[in-house]
Amino acid sequence: MATILFPNPSARLAPPAPLPPLTVPERLLLGPGPSNADPRVIAAMNQQPIGHLDAAYLAMMDEVQELLRYTWQTSNPLTYAVAGTGSAAMEATIANAVEPGDRVLVAVKGYFGHRLVDMAQRYGADVVTIHRPWGEAFTLEELTAALDEHRPAVLAIVHAETSTGVRQPLEGLGAACAEHDCLLLVDTVTSLGGVPIFLDEWQVDLAYSCSQKGLSCAPGISPFTMSPRAVAKLERRRQPVANWYLDAALLRKYWGPERVYHHTAPVNLTYALREALRLLAEEGLETRWQRHQQTATYFWQGLADLGLTCHVEESLRLPTLTTVRVPDGIDAKAVGRQLMTDYNIEVGGGLGELGGRVWRIGLMGYNSQPEHVDTLLHALETVLHQSA
Amino acid sequence: MATILFPNPSARLAPPAPLPPLTVPERLLLGPGPSNADPRVIAAMNQQPIGHLDAAYLAMMDEVQELLRYTWQTSNPLTYAVAGTGSAAMEATIANAVEPGDRVLVAVKGYFGHRLVDMAQRYGADVVTIHRPWGEAFTLEELTAALDEHRPAVLAIVHAETSTGVRQPLEGLGAACAEHDCLLLVDTVTSLGGVPIFLDEWQVDLAYSCSQKGLSCAPGISPFTMSPRAVAKLERRRQPVANWYLDAALLRKYWGPERVYHHTAPVNLTYALREALRLLAEEGLETRWQRHQQTATYFWQGLADLGLTCHVEESLRLPTLTTVRVPDGIDAKAVGRQLMTDYNIEVGGGLGELGGRVWRIGLMGYNSQPEHVDTLLHALETVLHQSA
Repeated sequence: MATILFPNPSARLAPPAPLPPLTVPERLLLGPGPSNADPRVIAAMNQQPIGHLDAAYLAMMDEVQELLRYTWQTSNPLTYAVAGTGSAAMEATIANAVEPGDRVLVAVKGYFGHRLVDMAQRYGADVVTIHRPWGEAFTLEELTAALDEHRPAVLAIVHAETSTGVRQPLEGLGAACAEHDCLLLVDTVTSLGGVPIFLDEWQVDLAYSCSQKGLSCAPGISPFTMSPRAVAKLERRRQPVANWYLDAALLRKYWGPERVYHHTAPVNLTYALREALRLLAEEGLETRWQRHQQTATYFWQGLADLGLTCHVEESLRLPTLTTVRVPDGIDAKAVGRQLMTDYNIEVGGGLGELGGRVWRIGLMGYNSQPEHVDTLLHALETVLHQSA
Repeated sequence: MATILFPNPSARLAPPAPLPPLTVPERLLLGPGPSNADPRVIAAMNQQPIGHLDAAYLAMMDEVQELLRYTWQTSNPLTYAVAGTGSAAMEATIANAVEPGDRVLVAVKGYFGHRLVDMAQRYGADVVTIHRPWGEAFTLEELTAALDEHRPAVLAIVHAETSTGVRQPLEGLGAACAEHDCLLLVDTVTSLGGVPIFLDEWQVDLAYSCSQKGLSCAPGISPFTMSPRAVAKLERRRQPVANWYLDAALLRKYWGPERVYHHTAPVNLTYALREALRLLAEEGLETRWQRHQQTATYFWQGLADLGLTCHVEESLRLPTLTTVRVPDGIDAKAVGRQLMTDYNIEVGGGLGELGGRVWRIGLMGYNSQPEHVDTLLHALETVLHQSA
């Protein structure tokens, strides 16, 4: 057989210098995500892929859908996992809910509200916004007044603002949206699996999340759901969804009984997500929510004992993610670096308006354990003492 | 602490019946993908995630970029891995190359050409197409004549048509596109890592691939590259890319020296891809291409010995994926099912125009080994004998 020759040998790019085997440092991930994965999740992922149309794989897809419905407390038939990270699932809700010219009202109270604005604009929405300071939530009255004023086709709001640590109360909002013939689109990235969510009871029409926070799975696969009301709007579209990869009209034929090929699924991440959701179902939602609340309360008490203050008032504080105010005279980034260097602990810095003003500390899923709180508080006390 | 109560206990959705631990059947994946992953790739993936802004992770990103450049034989600075499967990377090339109203010429000779048409239309392109029968390739003259006639801003063509097994010769096409002030966009999903590709030599402007074929990685992360000429068009855009998740103008700030947060990367798949590319660099491109060619030639000889015919003439045949004609009177699907049931071997059926008329047999990456050819030929002979 003839040797394969480079068409232009002088232009041949040589391989880079040989790399050593991968070494992954051991981190305690207490930032805004990813969190550490449950070891059972990693073990489940550690297998050969099988085909994305293999009967064994299709059965797993059904199991994942059923477990996602339980986790979100929804009976939405169109509930599946997007083959991308949480931002892809976010974009999937916008792409499938919005037609060019639709008015979209975004209630902005942090970084991810702004991201929803950016995405909605790219899909040709007529975007209007209302705002609350970073660290606060909207009241139902404010949201209802904005529905009255703007008459949007979609209201997009973040349940758990990863940039501020605020839990947005959603009771009553879905009913108000339904009265206004508006779809309610909710970001549950930092709440799913750690904070009470009742999608059907709250009449949420579109929601998305991620795998690597409250679910303690590896990142790269992301929960997505649409209510029958949102599906009806999808079916009424005058033009196709302006995004092939995330088009729910195509994806429902793969996740549904037709099993029409769409894309090659991230098979190993599906193994991982199934195990993560199975762990959640074994624990039970109420027990899991309670665990997150207890761990967070224990952490908040420890912060107070160190003289540190939370940025968000307790009634609106997420149990999954706490924004801790940086004391005067302390360099927030230097503290984060030292926690990483000396203790292999990752915490997050402030985003956007809160840059340099807070640390973002996540206690999510597998990592929501009092031992990790003790480890972090001890490290933080030492580092702050050295910085003072 | 108060127990967390369901707002409407009667509406509480109970968890599904407890699931057994995951059992993944052992398959020999000889279809159009996924292929079996190299065991070293699975071992690399089998670790805890770390943060997507961790210095250790950022170093891995740089390594992946450098290895992808070698694999594609390109010096394009903008070369990275999309956080999704191959179809996401396909859509990334379209989304970043096309502005509404741009004329896009798609050279269609199989299923994935049609997918490019669908995607380009969703991004507002003025799409024109030329066609060849499924199983043939275009000549340079045909393509140049179409450039002359249609004067497109982008020419999109599939190097390795996964639906037909055809290798499209690309020599001279990039120069013709450059003369016509047109970007050349090439699908290398079923060629990267198994079939000679010289992106720079061929003056390709945008290319994408997948992880689970010639690279023998798990699916869910996908190579993507843009030439400086394509980046210049991106920088001249009058409106933002109509896709936030895949916007190269944002992603280059994460993969480049700025390290601006964009999305939470699929960290474990990056571990896996790094190892897959490291294996490829260890083997060397020429050796790897030669291995694929030798395994395929051995397979084609074995098919002939069984009296089976390839759908594509040998000079245009992909070494990675062979379309085998289904003999008269044989039920293609039944044979596929029996290979799976009796031998745990996955082969692919025909797509689109070739539905029921061919099997698609992949010998890619780790699976390109003569032992697998022997196993498959033996099984195929037995099953066909029983079916006859």
